[in-house]
Amino acid sequence: MKKDYFRPAIAAMAGYMPGEQPDRKDMVKLNTNENPYPPSPEVEKTLRTLDCAQLRRYPNSTSDCVRDAAARLNGAARENIIAGNGSDDLLTMIFRAFTSPDLPMASINPSYTLYQDLAVMQEASVILIDLQPRTFALPPDLLEQAKVANLLMIARPNSPTGNSFPFAEVENICRKFDGMVVIDEAYADFADDTCMSLALSLPNVIVMRTMSKSYALAGVRVGYAVSSPAVIEGLMKLKDSYNVDGIAQAVAAAAMGDRAYLAGRVAAIKAARAKLAADLGGLGFEVVDSRANFVFARPPRGDGRGYFEFLRDRGVFIRFFDRPRTREYVRITVGTPEEMDILTGLTREYLKK
Amino acid sequence: MKKDYFRPAIAAMAGYMPGEQPDRKDMVKLNTNENPYPPSPEVEKTLRTLDCAQLRRYPNSTSDCVRDAAARLNGAARENIIAGNGSDDLLTMIFRAFTSPDLPMASINPSYTLYQDLAVMQEASVILIDLQPRTFALPPDLLEQAKVANLLMIARPNSPTGNSFPFAEVENICRKFDGMVVIDEAYADFADDTCMSLALSLPNVIVMRTMSKSYALAGVRVGYAVSSPAVIEGLMKLKDSYNVDGIAQAVAAAAMGDRAYLAGRVAAIKAARAKLAADLGGLGFEVVDSRANFVFARPPRGDGRGYFEFLRDRGVFIRFFDRPRTREYVRITVGTPEEMDILTGLTREYLKK
Repeated sequence: MKKDYFRPAIAAMAGYMPGEQPDRKDMVKLNTNENPYPPSPEVEKTLRTLDCAQLRRYPNSTSDCVRDAAARLNGAARENIIAGNGSDDLLTMIFRAFTSPDLPMASINPSYTLYQDLAVMQEASVILIDLQPRTFALPPDLLEQAKVANLLMIARPNSPTGNSFPFAEVENICRKFDGMVVIDEAYADFADDTCMSLALSLPNVIVMRTMSKSYALAGVRVGYAVSSPAVIEGLMKLKDSYNVDGIAQAVAAAAMGDRAYLAGRVAAIKAARAKLAADLGGLGFEVVDSRANFVFARPPRGDGRGYFEFLRDRGVFIRFFDRPRTREYVRITVGTPEEMDILTGLTREYLKK
Repeated sequence: MKKDYFRPAIAAMAGYMPGEQPDRKDMVKLNTNENPYPPSPEVEKTLRTLDCAQLRRYPNSTSDCVRDAAARLNGAARENIIAGNGSDDLLTMIFRAFTSPDLPMASINPSYTLYQDLAVMQEASVILIDLQPRTFALPPDLLEQAKVANLLMIARPNSPTGNSFPFAEVENICRKFDGMVVIDEAYADFADDTCMSLALSLPNVIVMRTMSKSYALAGVRVGYAVSSPAVIEGLMKLKDSYNVDGIAQAVAAAAMGDRAYLAGRVAAIKAARAKLAADLGGLGFEVVDSRANFVFARPPRGDGRGYFEFLRDRGVFIRFFDRPRTREYVRITVGTPEEMDILTGLTREYLKK
């Protein structure tokens, strides 16, 4: 281009880089926290019986079947819920709603780096609040550090670290912070508790959920956010008119209705997580206490990149984040028991090098 | 809420109001320019054979199967194309890319009012360029009026007016305008020509297409934009990581491959459009020359609202835009010949009142 037509803030940025989605069928893919099991059989039933002729019509603009299913699951009302084209769509709305050059964003660090990219797009300042070394717990002066922000992002359980934070500590933050707190609960189905009650009782809390992890529906883009009706109404203004695909709405609602299936798969993943953490611990890894469907672990020599590349060259993809606080670690998605055996077998080989 | 946490620009706005999507099965729905025919049989084939287990995986991040299908259709390369969760998703990216408090947006008027809402969200000034009375042609001083804008929106064919603009006139605007020109071709499959060649030859032109109208896939959110590789690369930074649903990608690519089906349905709609325009003209309506799958027409007494309400009370939904330049008109989606007969029958009744 002769001239740069883009806003300077956009022209200057690099853009978020999602985890690799290689097309190889023979690999063991443990890099983007997908579910190793298929979605509920209700999903297939919904797809096979869908009336294709009706696809000519726009879908329900506010995804009411998704909102109603989510309301039932969370003891909320339809008015407490907004559905998104995946959680990323909701995050984009949230950043456009609450950040600007005058309204900074604070995020725990390390966490989902997309938060920072979305703030940059809004030309909002970014305040990174470092988690404590090794435990990745919240720092005691978090509120002091976040003070000038209008939006505070807390992923709970956090990614890439996998740990959760005490409910009472998060509740105290929400009550005292003078701005909007977003608690990203993408992994909450694998945890022991949730902050949903805060979203339903405090005026400045949004809790986000996704169908991509526990429900095994990453291919179908649906997430939702829970908050007070006033906050939801405000976010609705920023939503694209038909932001959730009609097939995706039907499939997500069907999956949310099958609680027994979810419980079974979550239990299997938690069991595999416990075994993986124990196995890696036994091999000398430092393993962060995980409440998610992945573990964040430091190989014995702290060479995250070396371990990542060793596995990748042998067809096993895990995630390596090349940043100061994370490069001694890797993030490994919990897969099937068979996949975990392949991983630990290769890990033993790696340690013999 | 005790405090308003929203950015002032968002707190102050009302939000775009999409056309009604009533749930009644017995109505004649001619209000949101949906296709009266089902999508290609390839869509059903794709849905019925989809591997549901693979939905646990994230979809292709850049929708390459959609981009490749669109490239084949338009004599372009994959690098010329970005796919969106419907055209609205692309519009959101475009407004975040090219508008800001310092970078105004110009739009023809009347046109798709969402353009104005998106500019307001960016706190960008809005320059409305009135089309000429009755013909809704471009005004001769358009370039002069748009001068300070960084983004110029032209829907071609335009909505709600349905008419197109001479190619040479649009080309001249693109060559002389010192900013980005977006030509929204949502209805181009029903027109005689396209501006695709401008998107593929000039550095400041984006042409947008949707699967929602001619392809009868409004329920499945897919649109795409065509421009130079440099512009596409810039827009990619603003895209959500997995912005197009995996099922939607497969279905859209399948539909784009079935050119014969598209041609047949488009021909039927154009024939019904000609008949509807002639019938309404014969009944004393002033009918704008349409190149889209709808007609914009002024009832004999210019009482758009009265005609709209008369039809709505009898189960036929058309669209009425209650704004100064449009309230003497209504917009009627071209349906099946049977639906058009119901409409003209009721119109005769209305005129007898």
